[in-house]
Amino acid sequence: MTDKPTLSTSLSPALLHLYDLSNSVVVIIDVFRATSTIASALYNGAKSVIPVDSVPKAIEISKSIDGIAAGERDGMIADGLQHGNSPLEYTREFIEGKTLVLTTTNGTRLLHMALEKNADTIISGSFPNISAVCDFLLKEKKNVVLGCAGWKDRFNLEDTLFAGSVISRIKKEFTIHCDSSVMAEAMHASHKNNIMDFAPKLTHYHRLVERFGLIDDIKYCLTDDVANVLPLYKEGKLIVG
Amino acid sequence: MTDKPTLSTSLSPALLHLYDLSNSVVVIIDVFRATSTIASALYNGAKSVIPVDSVPKAIEISKSIDGIAAGERDGMIADGLQHGNSPLEYTREFIEGKTLVLTTTNGTRLLHMALEKNADTIISGSFPNISAVCDFLLKEKKNVVLGCAGWKDRFNLEDTLFAGSVISRIKKEFTIHCDSSVMAEAMHASHKNNIMDFAPKLTHYHRLVERFGLIDDIKYCLTDDVANVLPLYKEGKLIVG
Repeated sequence: MTDKPTLSTSLSPALLHLYDLSNSVVVIIDVFRATSTIASALYNGAKSVIPVDSVPKAIEISKSIDGIAAGERDGMIADGLQHGNSPLEYTREFIEGKTLVLTTTNGTRLLHMALEKNADTIISGSFPNISAVCDFLLKEKKNVVLGCAGWKDRFNLEDTLFAGSVISRIKKEFTIHCDSSVMAEAMHASHKNNIMDFAPKLTHYHRLVERFGLIDDIKYCLTDDVANVLPLYKEGKLIVG
Repeated sequence: MTDKPTLSTSLSPALLHLYDLSNSVVVIIDVFRATSTIASALYNGAKSVIPVDSVPKAIEISKSIDGIAAGERDGMIADGLQHGNSPLEYTREFIEGKTLVLTTTNGTRLLHMALEKNADTIISGSFPNISAVCDFLLKEKKNVVLGCAGWKDRFNLEDTLFAGSVISRIKKEFTIHCDSSVMAEAMHASHKNNIMDFAPKLTHYHRLVERFGLIDDIKYCLTDDVANVLPLYKEGKLIVG
């Protein structure tokens, strides 16, 4: 018998209903690019990031609080917005002291799903803040659900590789009976030393690099600890936890 | 430009809705153990296998046609039935010339979902009949959806490893823009030479071996081409295609 908390990996928002979130820390994972952008903005001094589910809501809320409305649909800056979902947009010069109101295709949607399912605690995770995420999970000692945002409910590899990297760091402190987690860890172990070489195999790489030329975004989003803060969801906002 | 048909992998019945089945060959994959059992029964001379979604229906249909009612719930022979979901039960001595009416937790359920979604063609796949499956897919030259049955909508590794093995054999003839397929092939490549050593990491292995002692079932279900027939769904029955 063991008293270790459990760790599970949900590979798609369409599988999130299989997990009990009410006593879990849920890690929202949208490596390309929402959760990397959230880490970047908070690391560079944003007061908070407010995740919202529509462009009109992003515009309305940002006006009411003098914030920055930003968002992405299908990989591009959403119609009606001036700022998108690139972590490189949110430099200290631009975002320090401001509130980012963000809407994205997958990551912010998953966060709202976790809220509806009464998650105990919600944080966001990405390679740029992986150490902060792992430190928090080890400190909390609660059950963990690693929630991959995927792409329109499809499985994606970059979120899985991040989940695998987290698992490789913290698995000794958790009970893992979950093939998704075993797979994620194995995929990460196979590719951790050549992740930029492996990246061109990902469907999302093609979307971002071949269609939009965003190779610098990809590199940033696959780099550990370049924005090492913990985005913690509290009362409608992600703040540094 | 290419005229190659597409190949995708659905990692769970809960993700099947993401794929257009109406112009696809759908491969139902339930390695432990429904599709291995189907291959075994047909290979050993069963006239057909009728997949049904409930125990009462299995009993009723088998009585009306003098068939063998069989099925599993939660890994055990279902209450009310004398025969279960072990491929080793269906020897030639027992099953030759008979009709097997089979109900299982995951595989037969997924087959009915594919039917409801108007799949063009439905076949069943497992390591014991992998060559027959690959030969059929190469011959048909239609789009392919590899449908993993999983466990109660959860991702599982054994179905994924089978999908990966199929992909490794036929990928040159298909267009693959699908992270699930890339992952499946990578997992298979990493573990194909030590699949029995890797098996104890699978949640389903624990269910079958530690709870029910079914190590011989596991070995059979992970062996290529020991029941190399093509189960093809036609008019309510799986027959040798």
